[in-house]
Amino acid sequence: MTLTIGVDVGGTKVAAGVVDDHGRIIEKLRRPTPSTSPHETAAVIAEVVDILKGKFDEVEAVGLGAAGFVDESRSMVLFAPNLAWRDEPLKKKVESQVGLPVIVENDANATAWGEAKFGAGRGEDHIVLITLGTGIGGGLIMDGELYRGRFGIGGEFGHFRVVPDGRRCGCGNRGCWEQYASGNALVAEARELARVSPALAGRLLELGDGSPEGISGPEITEAARGGDTAALECFRSVAVWVGQGMADLAAILDPGAFIIGGGLSEAGDLLLDPARAAFENALTGRGHRVFADIRMAELGPDAGIVGAADLARLR
Amino acid sequence: MTLTIGVDVGGTKVAAGVVDDHGRIIEKLRRPTPSTSPHETAAVIAEVVDILKGKFDEVEAVGLGAAGFVDESRSMVLFAPNLAWRDEPLKKKVESQVGLPVIVENDANATAWGEAKFGAGRGEDHIVLITLGTGIGGGLIMDGELYRGRFGIGGEFGHFRVVPDGRRCGCGNRGCWEQYASGNALVAEARELARVSPALAGRLLELGDGSPEGISGPEITEAARGGDTAALECFRSVAVWVGQGMADLAAILDPGAFIIGGGLSEAGDLLLDPARAAFENALTGRGHRVFADIRMAELGPDAGIVGAADLARLR
Amino acid sequence: MTLTIGVDVGGTKVAAGVVDDHGRIIEKLRRPTPSTSPHETAAVIAEVVDILKGKFDEVEAVGLGAAGFVDESRSMVLFAPNLAWRDEPLKKKVESQVGLPVIVENDANATAWGEAKFGAGRGEDHIVLITLGTGIGGGLIMDGELYRGRFGIGGEFGHFRVVPDGRRCGCGNRGCWEQYASGNALVAEARELARVSPALAGRLLELGDGSPEGISGPEITEAARGGDTAALECFRSVAVWVGQGMADLAAILDPGAFIIGGGLSEAGDLLLDPARAAFENALTGRGHRVFADIRMAELGPDAGIVGAADLARLR
Amino acid sequence: MTLTIGVDVGGTKVAAGVVDDHGRIIEKLRRPTPSTSPHETAAVIAEVVDILKGKFDEVEAVGLGAAGFVDESRSMVLFAPNLAWRDEPLKKKVESQVGLPVIVENDANATAWGEAKFGAGRGEDHIVLITLGTGIGGGLIMDGELYRGRFGIGGEFGHFRVVPDGRRCGCGNRGCWEQYASGNALVAEARELARVSPALAGRLLELGDGSPEGISGPEITEAARGGDTAALECFRSVAVWVGQGMADLAAILDPGAFIIGGGLSEAGDLLLDPARAAFENALTGRGHRVFADIRMAELGPDAGIVGAADLARLR
Repeated sequence: MTLTIGVDVGGTKVAAGVVDDHGRIIEKLRRPTPSTSPHETAAVIAEVVDILKGKFDEVEAVGLGAAGFVDESRSMVLFAPNLAWRDEPLKKKVESQVGLPVIVENDANATAWGEAKFGAGRGEDHIVLITLGTGIGGGLIMDGELYRGRFGIGGEFGHFRVVPDGRRCGCGNRGCWEQYASGNALVAEARELARVSPALAGRLLELGDGSPEGISGPEITEAARGGDTAALECFRSVAVWVGQGMADLAAILDPGAFIIGGGLSEAGDLLLDPARAAFENALTGRGHRVFADIRMAELGPDAGIVGAADLARLR
Repeated sequence: MTLTIGVDVGGTKVAAGVVDDHGRIIEKLRRPTPSTSPHETAAVIAEVVDILKGKFDEVEAVGLGAAGFVDESRSMVLFAPNLAWRDEPLKKKVESQVGLPVIVENDANATAWGEAKFGAGRGEDHIVLITLGTGIGGGLIMDGELYRGRFGIGGEFGHFRVVPDGRRCGCGNRGCWEQYASGNALVAEARELARVSPALAGRLLELGDGSPEGISGPEITEAARGGDTAALECFRSVAVWVGQGMADLAAILDPGAFIIGGGLSEAGDLLLDPARAAFENALTGRGHRVFADIRMAELGPDAGIVGAADLARLR
Repeated sequence: MTLTIGVDVGGTKVAAGVVDDHGRIIEKLRRPTPSTSPHETAAVIAEVVDILKGKFDEVEAVGLGAAGFVDESRSMVLFAPNLAWRDEPLKKKVESQVGLPVIVENDANATAWGEAKFGAGRGEDHIVLITLGTGIGGGLIMDGELYRGRFGIGGEFGHFRVVPDGRRCGCGNRGCWEQYASGNALVAEARELARVSPALAGRLLELGDGSPEGISGPEITEAARGGDTAALECFRSVAVWVGQGMADLAAILDPGAFIIGGGLSEAGDLLLDPARAAFENALTGRGHRVFADIRMAELGPDAGIVGAADLARLR
Repeated sequence: MTLTIGVDVGGTKVAAGVVDDHGRIIEKLRRPTPSTSPHETAAVIAEVVDILKGKFDEVEAVGLGAAGFVDESRSMVLFAPNLAWRDEPLKKKVESQVGLPVIVENDANATAWGEAKFGAGRGEDHIVLITLGTGIGGGLIMDGELYRGRFGIGGEFGHFRVVPDGRRCGCGNRGCWEQYASGNALVAEARELARVSPALAGRLLELGDGSPEGISGPEITEAARGGDTAALECFRSVAVWVGQGMADLAAILDPGAFIIGGGLSEAGDLLLDPARAAFENALTGRGHRVFADIRMAELGPDAGIVGAADLARLR
């Protein structure tokens, strides 16, 4: 049995794990990300790898999943909005410090690979993974392979446009899908409702601190679970956008399964039921084709570690 | 040298050719499609194959490109709106009549493969082919392979939604891309302009029969080439939608090149220049990534024959 | 009893009538409009007035309703798209030829006044008249008076915007109400449906000449009366826009009644029932206010003659 | 010379003044509004009137401007969202306590009348007053008279729909003009920008408390005055909606002047210049008509007192 290390490098923490060839995490470690310094971030990565490798001699390679654009040779981070990296030669830097082969991968790709091989995607070769959190992360498994695109940056589902002249997006455009179908969109929906119709949103305001800004995801989920009409309407509204976007992706990609992860997916059927209904209602060619499965992710936040480690094994 | 036969089965004609392993068509043949009878359509296909095979002993296999949903085993046409096929076992039928191995492929996929291997896509492994005609046809080459999707029906770009509650589409939805970015969309744009502002559309009406309904694609292209403001505005308007849609596809697929074919593409730079500008203006992450190439298709209507034949060779 | 003459000057015909002070037309006359010559149009107007005045000595004044922008002194036609008039001193021209006092009024205003005083608006002081034909004509009665605006051109309801970046309008803008809620909009809806879903639109195509362009208003109304789903859906779709626009106007104007005239209104409850439902559903403050009445016009195409004649009497 | 008292009854304060027949305020008084008790609110109104009347014997009548729907007899407040009034017989209540004739008017109507007669509207008979604050208030002067509508609730410009399926509004609809063209809309725009593009919004965040929620109107105006690109873009974005809505109102109402008041108008040309440009660009029939004037309000927050007092004089 071989072991590899997977590292998930996010804007707030570096989470690493030693993973076996069944996708099991044997030992885990995490550190805060010194996110304003690219140099120190690389040093923290090297440090956690060193510690883990010191405990398990069999470790053969390291996979890094980073939130940013990664080049097609899986060596450089071209651009990482929350990590201050610009054209960062991460593979070289870490390899020189840890003495093991390193590959760099986009974090959503690593997550998709983890879920596809060891989680909700087992047995399916055509998978679209959608992570609904602050924004939308995406990964594609096609014909059993991770699809990375010509320049390594495919799968940016969050930024196809769903509303002309729609809501502003951090990417500089307007109307991007993630402004309508993400955890942030759910919160924005609830706060807007509370601002313009406080009476309707009474339960939401009560669970928050009384002000629209005090309402966040957990309050909305709690209220919806308790049957609060306003919260359910917020979920339904966001779920319709989730379902419509999946129908758009299915027209293009014809996957066998969608896997839905990220914070918003923790609401489970509150989200998935109306999303599935909207998907089936919007899919082009419905009646002449099979509906793709829509599944919850299974590995949770560890998927990125597991996926990055496995990609290092397959390097 | 081996030879294979490619057959492009459309709603109005069956076009077949003997193709060598450099993608050259050695001999061609065409027949009208008896489109209301699935049975007779298969008979016509068998007939043209028999004739061609009679002339070239070296023919080893047959590839059929059909305008419809094809199953993942490349044997059946599940649904073909213009050919009256429903769950048609086309491979079996034709093989039993011609005594050669047969594969069935979606026609836009065959075209994409032809262009990718022998036309505008040579040397590029990540290609999105977009055929702008009556509607939009699409094909994907990913990592050098034709991408077909889980159920054989990926690449239906024409039907992702670009405008909520937008124009009706024949697929039963509203707001599909092909209602805004196709040859039909250009004609609709020009006719609408002529209806509401006949004075502005004087040149277009003059080239047509004097009525909005008399304006079709060639008139618009001719007027635009002559510098007519209204015609140029129609092109610009459609091109902006072409460019926006390519930006959306690039967010998802990150291709190295877009190849634009179909009747509308014959307008050349009248279309491509404003489409490219709109694409570059709308691409998410612009400034941190390479722009994909946007190229005209090179093989014209023969691309489907060439592609189907080559896919049969590689079967 | 005094008599006055009302003249309705449209793009295709000049219709005149002698009207008594109960709004009854005693004698009528019509001539084709020589629409390309402003000069000849004035001559035709003078001619019909002369004939009528020759028969009725008691005629005291003449009211002209013209399809165009009329200045605030009710003397000049500033601009009439279908009549080739630009800054036409119509009052002076006609007065010099007929020897009677003349006032010029916008035709929709004349119609509104006729309906308000002698037709569907009797007893109501705050009226919005909406004429749904090729486009939308409008007239306002406020506090019992015809409202003309500062420059004589108020009530152009057809051109407030209901969809950003919507359908082109002949006025040069996009998204104007009349592109969604008029006889033309109904026809456009039915033709679009027939183009993209011929199977659904079978009855409409059958009543027309088999082509989408062969479908016009009467066919749609006939099909809808016979219960055809596609035709009813076209009516419903247009009626929703009619109702929404009335809700917008009610927010601004708070009328006691809407009077709906024009060719599209001949469909009666096929149009009014869903329009009323949409209005009541969209009205701001519903639940805390009275719904305005929505009524069919009563005087038909004569309303313009009756109104112009009465405005001349009240000059 | 006669004197009358005007009282502006808002959700937070009751402001009253003694006004002469030149529209000058001789003495002013204000009290907090006990907004949760309709009864106490009436008592506070009576109290301030009593005090003022005690000082000026010549006071002849009282005009109350209230933020709500007022019935057509100017006696009752039908509904006032921020004042807990439902079918409140305000005229009777106050008259019985103060022993003077009382009229009740919608506060935006009172403001419009004040500005029209003594402020920016002097000399113009067709005025649309638009108050851009938290939402949009409106008033109409037509043919020199205050226009109140059939049921007393005309001029609710804030609630005509400008975007189908647009932003939620407190009135229960979506896409109302005030969600795009008000002080609140400006703040929402700036906060959205700060949330999705903190780097671009650096100056705005710096002037606020560092969080998007800390940005309010004064910060945006200050940043815009200093030339900050993000703040100017927020103003431009809101101003385009202001201008478009004025063009829509001009199509319907053809006023001679728009008067712009409310907190947002304090930004002056930062708002009015782009709003005017958008108005002129969007007006239907431009080229064949005069553009209405667009003017800043002159009386500030006192306009409501002055207008209510004058309406009482003219009762």
